[in-house]
Amino acid sequence: MTVKLEDVAKLAGVSPTTVSRVINNYGAISDKTKKAVHAAMNQLNYRPNTLARSLQGKSPHLIGLIFYDVSHPFFGELVSRLENLLFERGYKAILCNSANDPEKEREYLRLLAANQVDGIIAGAHNENIPEYKAYGLPIVSFDRNLAPTIPIVSSDNAQGGRLAASVLSANGVQAPLIITGKELPNSPTNARSQGFHDYFASHGIEPATMAIPFETAAAIRRTEIQRLLTKGQYDGIFCTDDLTAMQVHQQALTMGIRVPDDLKLIGYDGTRFIQNYYPALTTIVQPLDDISKLLVDLLLTRINDHKADLDPNYLLPVSLHQGITA
Amino acid sequence: MTVKLEDVAKLAGVSPTTVSRVINNYGAISDKTKKAVHAAMNQLNYRPNTLARSLQGKSPHLIGLIFYDVSHPFFGELVSRLENLLFERGYKAILCNSANDPEKEREYLRLLAANQVDGIIAGAHNENIPEYKAYGLPIVSFDRNLAPTIPIVSSDNAQGGRLAASVLSANGVQAPLIITGKELPNSPTNARSQGFHDYFASHGIEPATMAIPFETAAAIRRTEIQRLLTKGQYDGIFCTDDLTAMQVHQQALTMGIRVPDDLKLIGYDGTRFIQNYYPALTTIVQPLDDISKLLVDLLLTRINDHKADLDPNYLLPVSLHQGITA
Repeated sequence: MTVKLEDVAKLAGVSPTTVSRVINNYGAISDKTKKAVHAAMNQLNYRPNTLARSLQGKSPHLIGLIFYDVSHPFFGELVSRLENLLFERGYKAILCNSANDPEKEREYLRLLAANQVDGIIAGAHNENIPEYKAYGLPIVSFDRNLAPTIPIVSSDNAQGGRLAASVLSANGVQAPLIITGKELPNSPTNARSQGFHDYFASHGIEPATMAIPFETAAAIRRTEIQRLLTKGQYDGIFCTDDLTAMQVHQQALTMGIRVPDDLKLIGYDGTRFIQNYYPALTTIVQPLDDISKLLVDLLLTRINDHKADLDPNYLLPVSLHQGITA
Repeated sequence: MTVKLEDVAKLAGVSPTTVSRVINNYGAISDKTKKAVHAAMNQLNYRPNTLARSLQGKSPHLIGLIFYDVSHPFFGELVSRLENLLFERGYKAILCNSANDPEKEREYLRLLAANQVDGIIAGAHNENIPEYKAYGLPIVSFDRNLAPTIPIVSSDNAQGGRLAASVLSANGVQAPLIITGKELPNSPTNARSQGFHDYFASHGIEPATMAIPFETAAAIRRTEIQRLLTKGQYDGIFCTDDLTAMQVHQQALTMGIRVPDDLKLIGYDGTRFIQNYYPALTTIVQPLDDISKLLVDLLLTRINDHKADLDPNYLLPVSLHQGITA
């Protein structure tokens, strides 16, 4: 059984707050009390906290999680799993929603450089952050090229794009459109679009592409989708994220466009949230459990051995959630 | 401009990793290198990191955020805002998804007792956690009674319940139902149900109540909702969270029940996510921006003065998001 701060307090005959103050050398404490607390700590072989471990030159057992924003259901689910897995392995998670703030992202990387966190799992959307390349420190990435030495875990985006195309194609789609974010050079997510195009190209069809940057406000996004649906040129749409697919679905219903009769629709991500609370949406499911486990395993491997030989890319297979929209 | 670790490294003619090792007294570093790094730090007036601050007996500038789970859209949005506000004030956030794990929640409270975090913002769902009462430390609560000394920030749940009832009533509802979680003794959220009942009681109507515990699996929840809707006893439903309302809405559509013609429906929470991606749902909006700001303000007030005189309860007004379901 782990000895607790309270046990020390009880044995020393003081309050837990007093024990905490003695440990952290904070506040006015008499020498007599200090002595009693230290004696109790020794007697119980009380393991000091992370701060004390740091004082001894050991690690703080903190991991930085740098992602777009936990208010986005996909990143909320990913971060939730990562935090749980890290907790099981004795690490706590520092949360960084980097959104569109590269300076904030860099600040968290500097924490790592200063040994205030043991490692970082990053999947943020900012570009050209030099700190990723600057230190040979434990970092793993989700779905982003950060630096040549940083391994990337992704769902098999190309397979996902092909699967989406094959579902639409099997449903008779002849005029497909893909709605995707801004494609960054070298980003693994570009393979979703590539796989989609490749599949249709092999059937002699050239899909149209519409780019709506990820950070576009929902209201603007809705207007663009409305304009698009008004033209009615397409009989099948693949959105490379589920939130955009939800907007397309609801805009279509509002406009009296019958889904799937007039328009087939398929999304990407397939979070538990979507499967539970918007099950109508047919979507490509990223294996979030496996992604999270692999990210944590790779990071802890690198923390324990900075020179561990890791692959540059790890691709995990996707699956289909069959809803009623395609 | 803030002096960075890299600046120190450059001036000292060593790598950032070496500077970090000198600061943290880790690894084999020659005395000459140590001297050069310390000289560079002094010359640049380099502010040491949080760990160094801790070594000096100052605070680690970490705040624990203990909530149900960031994979839930409401808590994802709340935690996202809290992390951003704390970052602006110079604090970093340690994330704890306590879900249904009271032991995990207690572990994070012990971090606080050991001065490894400066304070905690908690809104978790576990009951009877003695640690909340054990220490007179900086904690503020969202929507939960944790201990007599811990201030509670809530949306005005009673007002929200009355508002939901008034919307249904104005739409002609005669046989209302409220679907709510398990009501904990003394929980501020019970006021949602109370306000709803009070409003209808004053119009001579007694609403029915159905309790589905918050942690019920989505599939089971769906089955219960299906059974309920099959009976068709109610012409208006108030769900005390939006996810349940989404399930009722979609189950009704699947069963051919016309919303709002046959069934009026209103939810509670009104996250930005719902307003952007499921705008059809009429719902009571909790003021998440104001809630987050107040939680952070109260916590920092208490961190700076452990005896700060705070109110036991802070109620913030709710508003209505007018969708098409009621």
